[in-house]
Amino acid sequence: MSELKPVGEVKGKKSVVLSGVVAGATVLCSVGRSGNDLHYRGYDIAELCEHCEFEEVAYLLVHGALPTSAQLDAYKAKLRAYRALPDVVCRVLEALPATAHPMQVLQAGVSALGCAEPEAASQDAAAAREIVDRLLAVLSPMLLYWLHFSTTGKRIRVQTEDESIGGNFLHLLHGRPPTSLHVRAMHRSLILYAEHEFNASTFTARVITGTGSDMYSAMAGAIGALRGSKHGGANEVAAVIINRYTSPDEAEADILRRVAGKEIIIGFGHPVYTVCDPRSDLIKEVARTLSRAAGNMRPFDIAERIETVMWREKKMFPNLDWFSAVSYEMMGVPVPLFTPLFALARTSGWGAHIMEQRVLGKIIRPTAEYIGPENRSFVPLSGR
Amino acid sequence: MSELKPVGEVKGKKSVVLSGVVAGATVLCSVGRSGNDLHYRGYDIAELCEHCEFEEVAYLLVHGALPTSAQLDAYKAKLRAYRALPDVVCRVLEALPATAHPMQVLQAGVSALGCAEPEAASQDAAAAREIVDRLLAVLSPMLLYWLHFSTTGKRIRVQTEDESIGGNFLHLLHGRPPTSLHVRAMHRSLILYAEHEFNASTFTARVITGTGSDMYSAMAGAIGALRGSKHGGANEVAAVIINRYTSPDEAEADILRRVAGKEIIIGFGHPVYTVCDPRSDLIKEVARTLSRAAGNMRPFDIAERIETVMWREKKMFPNLDWFSAVSYEMMGVPVPLFTPLFALARTSGWGAHIMEQRVLGKIIRPTAEYIGPENRSFVPLSGR
Repeated sequence: MSELKPVGEVKGKKSVVLSGVVAGATVLCSVGRSGNDLHYRGYDIAELCEHCEFEEVAYLLVHGALPTSAQLDAYKAKLRAYRALPDVVCRVLEALPATAHPMQVLQAGVSALGCAEPEAASQDAAAAREIVDRLLAVLSPMLLYWLHFSTTGKRIRVQTEDESIGGNFLHLLHGRPPTSLHVRAMHRSLILYAEHEFNASTFTARVITGTGSDMYSAMAGAIGALRGSKHGGANEVAAVIINRYTSPDEAEADILRRVAGKEIIIGFGHPVYTVCDPRSDLIKEVARTLSRAAGNMRPFDIAERIETVMWREKKMFPNLDWFSAVSYEMMGVPVPLFTPLFALARTSGWGAHIMEQRVLGKIIRPTAEYIGPENRSFVPLSGR
Repeated sequence: MSELKPVGEVKGKKSVVLSGVVAGATVLCSVGRSGNDLHYRGYDIAELCEHCEFEEVAYLLVHGALPTSAQLDAYKAKLRAYRALPDVVCRVLEALPATAHPMQVLQAGVSALGCAEPEAASQDAAAAREIVDRLLAVLSPMLLYWLHFSTTGKRIRVQTEDESIGGNFLHLLHGRPPTSLHVRAMHRSLILYAEHEFNASTFTARVITGTGSDMYSAMAGAIGALRGSKHGGANEVAAVIINRYTSPDEAEADILRRVAGKEIIIGFGHPVYTVCDPRSDLIKEVARTLSRAAGNMRPFDIAERIETVMWREKKMFPNLDWFSAVSYEMMGVPVPLFTPLFALARTSGWGAHIMEQRVLGKIIRPTAEYIGPENRSFVPLSGR
């Protein structure tokens, strides 16, 4: 690998390949055009976050328009019915050890569901939307069925009566119905994580879809991409950073040392925002409310102090992952389930992009700059 | 989706998004620079195909240089030892139904192996290469363990004494050691399928890797992309086309009708070659030899006639998939295992690209052209 040098012909920011390069058209999302804006299908994220349930936003993304009350009721009823785990998937999840990475479990679970309930070769659009809805509903059951079985041997009942996907997640995690405060916080969090244009996991789903592959293959690939610490995995890293400290003062002193040492602090900055991440203030209020209700302001105060320090020292703003970490901690979610929650939400965006890429009907196939040796003479095995 | 229009800013051929756009540097492969050339790490594909075993080429791609005799012997011994299936993976495979798509089975199997034998967070390069070698060795055992168990209930012993990966595949498929002719044909076929620059599945693996994700997640995503009929799935479509006819004359008459009707014939043309696919003549000779040995020239003759017609009528050349389909059929491989064989071979290229992307250390994140509605007024649920 010693011959490898940085890519010369790729435009934009050096840390991001293909930054600013258009890889397709979309009607689903616009982002970063004024430096701090985010719209889903033309609606401002702040309004969606303030007024909607996650299921409304998922419906908007997957089915194309905000639902009426009747449509939303029907949609939520359908999603509740879609929580059931087929035997094939249960047996696969029961085989996976407690030491597995939860995102790898989700990936294996989605592939197993694709074996049990395959998409038809016709790739009919209405049927494809049903698969997206099925996945939206079943990811929490998959994850928590595996978590409980692998750690306690207990086969939990996954079809709770909770109205929402977030409520179902918290109920299955804690074994009791969540408070309305926590249900509302989950709605906001999942809405903020639902969609973000051609981010790396969505782009992965579109590249896979471009070959003509099926919905499950594309979703499993997207889950694989989201796991990385430069993408969805960042909310777990943020939690580790925040939990490293016992007080805001300790955090400030250590972060100053790290910034002086040129260390990158995960949870700050974003490749498509220049002014701020418009989602950060929204999730920060969620984190503040949850922390007050829990009577535990320490993680919030530490996170807020680091926010102050990073702005003062580096003019860097927190991204969505930073206060999401505090929010999830306040709802008692274990850190290894933070990125799976992101996956759960983004399944709505992935599904919408997969369907959009299918309408486009094109394969995505860039080229490489070759920088290796030219025309080497072949020496047969006997002469080496 | 009605607002969707073709992408305007993407360069190159209209049917391929990002065609000609550089998405990174590589030392692994150069392709299509003179219209019909292909080199792996600077070596001409024709020489590698003529003189090497697949394991030599996999070693070249994954470990960086053609092996000496001693290195090759040690490598093959290691790959043989890596054939064993862990219990976790056996139990997952036993859960998957016979009706599953073999590529979805491979994807689930790779994710399950990632649960059983996870990559360390350090992502040490030497350890990563071991995972690539493990996957190279274990994909045939996975696939054929599932195939036999799901159809007959029999748990086969996967660790045969066959020296080669291709031999292990044929032995597990047919339940008897393959002939030396078939082993040699598998070497050539797998060498030709091993690597092809930034094709869609390899690019998928690189996008996933760019986020910092692990080896298994990237490989599972690549398998998902390869499955599509515009990519690896094409060799199965080629078989369906060739087997549609009982004679070359019938094939010619029907293909002429289809060409007149502007139908795209899968197996012809390639986005990166303009003159011919340099792999086609190489695999055609393999197909001819296997057909003669089998005493069955009909599929070969039909495929060759269609080749003649497509060149005469459309100036289109067959790609690697066309005569690969005839070759696999002559070795008694069922059509649904054609793309998995491609996956088996390409695992070497994917692994090398994943390690190269890690050295580069960048996230791949293009942008989208937004063509949807702007600043829509939000109407709360009660007002819809």
